[in-house]
Amino acid sequence: MNTEKSIDFFFNPESIALIGASPNPEKLSHTILESLRKMNFKGKIYPVNPGYREIEGLKCYSSPGEIEDRIDIAIFAVPAKAVLEILKTPVENIKGAIIVSSGFREMGPCGKKMEDELRALLKEKGIRAMGPNCLGIYDTISNVDTFFIEREKIERPVKDGISVLTQSGSFAAMIMDELANEGAGVARVVSYGNKVDVDESDCLEFLTQDEATKAIALYIESVENGRRFLEVASSCVKKKPVVALKVGKREPGARAASSHTGAISGMYEAYEAAFRKTGIIEVASYEELKDACKVLNRYSPVEGKRVLIITDGGGIGIYIADSCEESGLKVPELSEVAVRKLKEKLPAFASVRNPIDLTGSVRDEHYVAALQETPAEEYDLALVSLLWGPPLLTEGVAEKIRNFADSCRKPILISSPGGKFSRELASAFTKAGMPVFFTPESAVRAATVLCCRKK
Amino acid sequence: MNTEKSIDFFFNPESIALIGASPNPEKLSHTILESLRKMNFKGKIYPVNPGYREIEGLKCYSSPGEIEDRIDIAIFAVPAKAVLEILKTPVENIKGAIIVSSGFREMGPCGKKMEDELRALLKEKGIRAMGPNCLGIYDTISNVDTFFIEREKIERPVKDGISVLTQSGSFAAMIMDELANEGAGVARVVSYGNKVDVDESDCLEFLTQDEATKAIALYIESVENGRRFLEVASSCVKKKPVVALKVGKREPGARAASSHTGAISGMYEAYEAAFRKTGIIEVASYEELKDACKVLNRYSPVEGKRVLIITDGGGIGIYIADSCEESGLKVPELSEVAVRKLKEKLPAFASVRNPIDLTGSVRDEHYVAALQETPAEEYDLALVSLLWGPPLLTEGVAEKIRNFADSCRKPILISSPGGKFSRELASAFTKAGMPVFFTPESAVRAATVLCCRKK
Repeated sequence: MNTEKSIDFFFNPESIALIGASPNPEKLSHTILESLRKMNFKGKIYPVNPGYREIEGLKCYSSPGEIEDRIDIAIFAVPAKAVLEILKTPVENIKGAIIVSSGFREMGPCGKKMEDELRALLKEKGIRAMGPNCLGIYDTISNVDTFFIEREKIERPVKDGISVLTQSGSFAAMIMDELANEGAGVARVVSYGNKVDVDESDCLEFLTQDEATKAIALYIESVENGRRFLEVASSCVKKKPVVALKVGKREPGARAASSHTGAISGMYEAYEAAFRKTGIIEVASYEELKDACKVLNRYSPVEGKRVLIITDGGGIGIYIADSCEESGLKVPELSEVAVRKLKEKLPAFASVRNPIDLTGSVRDEHYVAALQETPAEEYDLALVSLLWGPPLLTEGVAEKIRNFADSCRKPILISSPGGKFSRELASAFTKAGMPVFFTPESAVRAATVLCCRKK
Repeated sequence: MNTEKSIDFFFNPESIALIGASPNPEKLSHTILESLRKMNFKGKIYPVNPGYREIEGLKCYSSPGEIEDRIDIAIFAVPAKAVLEILKTPVENIKGAIIVSSGFREMGPCGKKMEDELRALLKEKGIRAMGPNCLGIYDTISNVDTFFIEREKIERPVKDGISVLTQSGSFAAMIMDELANEGAGVARVVSYGNKVDVDESDCLEFLTQDEATKAIALYIESVENGRRFLEVASSCVKKKPVVALKVGKREPGARAASSHTGAISGMYEAYEAAFRKTGIIEVASYEELKDACKVLNRYSPVEGKRVLIITDGGGIGIYIADSCEESGLKVPELSEVAVRKLKEKLPAFASVRNPIDLTGSVRDEHYVAALQETPAEEYDLALVSLLWGPPLLTEGVAEKIRNFADSCRKPILISSPGGKFSRELASAFTKAGMPVFFTPESAVRAATVLCCRKK
């Protein structure tokens, strides 16, 4: 039976055994060992493989039982059958397991039987486990990385406040790679696959009291224990924002989900109701979940839906205003006082209404003036759109806007569409600690996440 | 009065006068001259500026009237007032004008008066004109480029089949930059700004019979002559697909549009009805318009909505299936015959249903086998999703899939999300002439454009 109720030790391990360790760079286990070292993992690492006496300068053990230490996490990177065999040997010193191996329930009746056996063995030995059929943990706080895909292929995000929970490994890899590529970070990412033991509720419970986690993003195919999820999610939402993407909503997706992680994805309506009841912010798409991760790293949801739009491209400003209104946000007209103040400080070419259009003649300071002169009580969130064509606009604008954002206590979202040149200049914002959204819609989706909490 | 009814000569000019030409690299006119040369424009170029006798090795004229040649396009890159003054001098040799200058109707009552004077002058002199307040023409067929933003800032797309018509210059610049950045091309792009003369209907009429244009994308703030637009659009749609994004739908956007290009964007419902009536495919977002441009460069709309999904990431497959169904597409179960054929050719680890999941053990040839073995009569379009993490997947898969696509006569859309590594490998598809979509949603939006013509 599982003696340990809490799974905290998965996120603060002092010792890791790598079962199936290998000096062969083509083996998954080799990638994991390399990752742990690149992460600068501070605890002990014990390679386990009866075929070797040493791997990469570390003493190699023939079995976990041979290690004279408590093992917080045993990473199983061996075929499904070998996982079961090893668990039948003395493994009393193993506290937790991450079983990345596939070949269980997702493979049909035969695999299902093996997974049942796996569950029984884990219970008998008192081992808490993540997986099987998962990537495990990528953790910028504890410096653990069991994701077995090389960082040349899947970039690793820097340290930040959002934690991501997902059944799907491919989903975890995709969002990590893209967040990293867009200059955004994460706190902890958990891919828990078939959930033979640890599930979304266990992880959510841990993250609720985790100080490193500012907000949580969920990718959900299925939830088996609905009551527990409702309880845990409700307490979590009281402490920090939780966003969720439900996949397997529709019949073909649900059909595929059942073969994928062996999940029964159930009635979408039940999930929808659960999200509403607990206060989880449901997002409609992967793109929106990614936008949510980026924006929640820096900002908390706000009361109110009034968006101030500032742009240097008239067409884009109009389009953003449309998108905001269609997403349930408001783009209010500015007061006469505001218009007067803005007209005083902005050049004649600027169009002083909402959206404020600074046009192609814009200079850096006009963006700041537009933000400073609009009375704070007239909007809840500002969406600043930059096209980098205007000749007098420089990357220096990023620090100026960041300074304003630091003082104003309202979310300022940056939209910077375009190609290489724009990405390069926009990185000044990322460096200044502000998330950048690369399409107008992306920024509007992020704004919607902040402004439209379903309660 | 305008003697010339057709505006064809704008797209096949033999001579261009650049009014306001300058050797100063900071001037817009200098960027235009540089662009024309980089495009390798084959016709004659006549710089006009009374202050110089020669610019960049070309004889410089003091006025357009001094040029002893017919001028197909006179590009006006001078302040608004100077445009009017020059038009009062002898300009009988000018056939068409592109007035990039701002400072007209978009500036309020005073500018409106100037624009009225401009219109009268153009009529009197028999000059057809695009603009003012526009970027003009970027044309990969005639090698004209009047966009005055440097190519270091805004990349120029290669030659392909989609032509883009837009009131907004910032919109034109943004979509060109992004298309180029994503390896997609265009035929002709026209930014016509305030539409003092040439409007969307004139351009659409030309593009209808333009062999270089395979499909057309419209960004519309307003249409003034609704009846003519309906006529022209209806005939155009009979010959090639037309997609449109209407902006200024909602009150705040419409408010901004009126100041932007001086347009009255009118009731959105009227536009919606017009799109439906003419068979124009309306898109809901900028992202979707871009996706449409990419997909219509290669594929024509199809009859039917059945999507075959092939993936190497289970979670993404489920998500794509959901997205398809939510967008009105169908993800049908495969027949028993298909399943049997696929099971024979695909390894045991593959999940053989729709979506087909080739898993992380995928090899290049499995993608092709999945396409080859699924009977063509069971789907209308295939959506192939690649995550590049799987160790045995190589960029060689691109050519193999392209070869299949060439023979099968069904659209095969590629979805390749991820960061640097994925972009790099995915470029093999772009090189093989297949558009790549960088988020799952992006591919689904493109599929929807092809499958869901509103008629």
